[in-house]
Amino acid sequence: MKALIISGDLFEDSELLVPWYRLLEENIGVDIGSIKTGTITGKHGYKVAVHFSLDEIDPSSYDLLILPGGKAPASLRKNGTLLAIVRHFFEENKPVAAICHGPQILVSADVLTGKKATCYKSVAEELKSAGADYRDEEVVVDGNLITSRVPSDLPNFMREIMKKCRESA
Amino acid sequence: MKALIISGDLFEDSELLVPWYRLLEENIGVDIGSIKTGTITGKHGYKVAVHFSLDEIDPSSYDLLILPGGKAPASLRKNGTLLAIVRHFFEENKPVAAICHGPQILVSADVLTGKKATCYKSVAEELKSAGADYRDEEVVVDGNLITSRVPSDLPNFMREIMKKCRESA
Repeated sequence: MKALIISGDLFEDSELLVPWYRLLEENIGVDIGSIKTGTITGKHGYKVAVHFSLDEIDPSSYDLLILPGGKAPASLRKNGTLLAIVRHFFEENKPVAAICHGPQILVSADVLTGKKATCYKSVAEELKSAGADYRDEEVVVDGNLITSRVPSDLPNFMREIMKKCRESA
Repeated sequence: MKALIISGDLFEDSELLVPWYRLLEENIGVDIGSIKTGTITGKHGYKVAVHFSLDEIDPSSYDLLILPGGKAPASLRKNGTLLAIVRHFFEENKPVAAICHGPQILVSADVLTGKKATCYKSVAEELKSAGADYRDEEVVVDGNLITSRVPSDLPNFMREIMKKCRESA
């Protein structure tokens, strides 16, 4: 089992740190990917080292994709390599978990048609326009897709992610 | 099973948020205590609502005590009510988990004699002076006591805390 977290500068700090540390607690390997290697800095100032740039990532090496929120998704969502990585996970029916503004990347990847999903409230309209069945709930699970709205949803978000990890193990 | 997290302004954000969300993921109830009710604000700007002031806390209602780091422990460590709460946990042999500067509170409570423990490196000397058997390790467990050094130790810290929760359940 190996997980990939993709984000960039101005990520929502807790939405990256909580899943990352939770997976490490479970002895699940985690790589952090971003547009370039080096360090990314969250909205609240936490600095995280990037293991791989998007071009270096082989998505077939990973069993789980996590997309934290914050302002990073808006700057990442036009990156074609990232969208191809996301589509790979959906094609292979591997778990994808996105929170807050993270689902903006799923909108751009055009993978939400008919999928039950949630997101930060300001993103709801574009989720619906992308064909998602939007729900205002702490966590929404539809097949391989797990979505949540805000940092305080993280306990529910992580509970469902860990359930998927156990199913995939 | 019920947990109590005690901290104050300028807490190390991830050291409060990660344990809090992790316990909620496990459906373990968590109360946040501080010198006064209202809101406490972390070093990185996260705001957390306080459920109970120290004077309102009945420590016999709780099975686990967590002391996050940051600058909060330095301002909390002289509070006699807090020190009595800490001593209650040691007298009853209930789990106490402290990270980073959190162990400063254990020094003031005088509960470390002969205990293996760790902490943030700048706190190490006073830990030794308090009679602790200091170790520079990611997580140190000695009986009811679990200690760690820095935020990146959180995966190991939480793994040991959850192990104690399962033993106590």
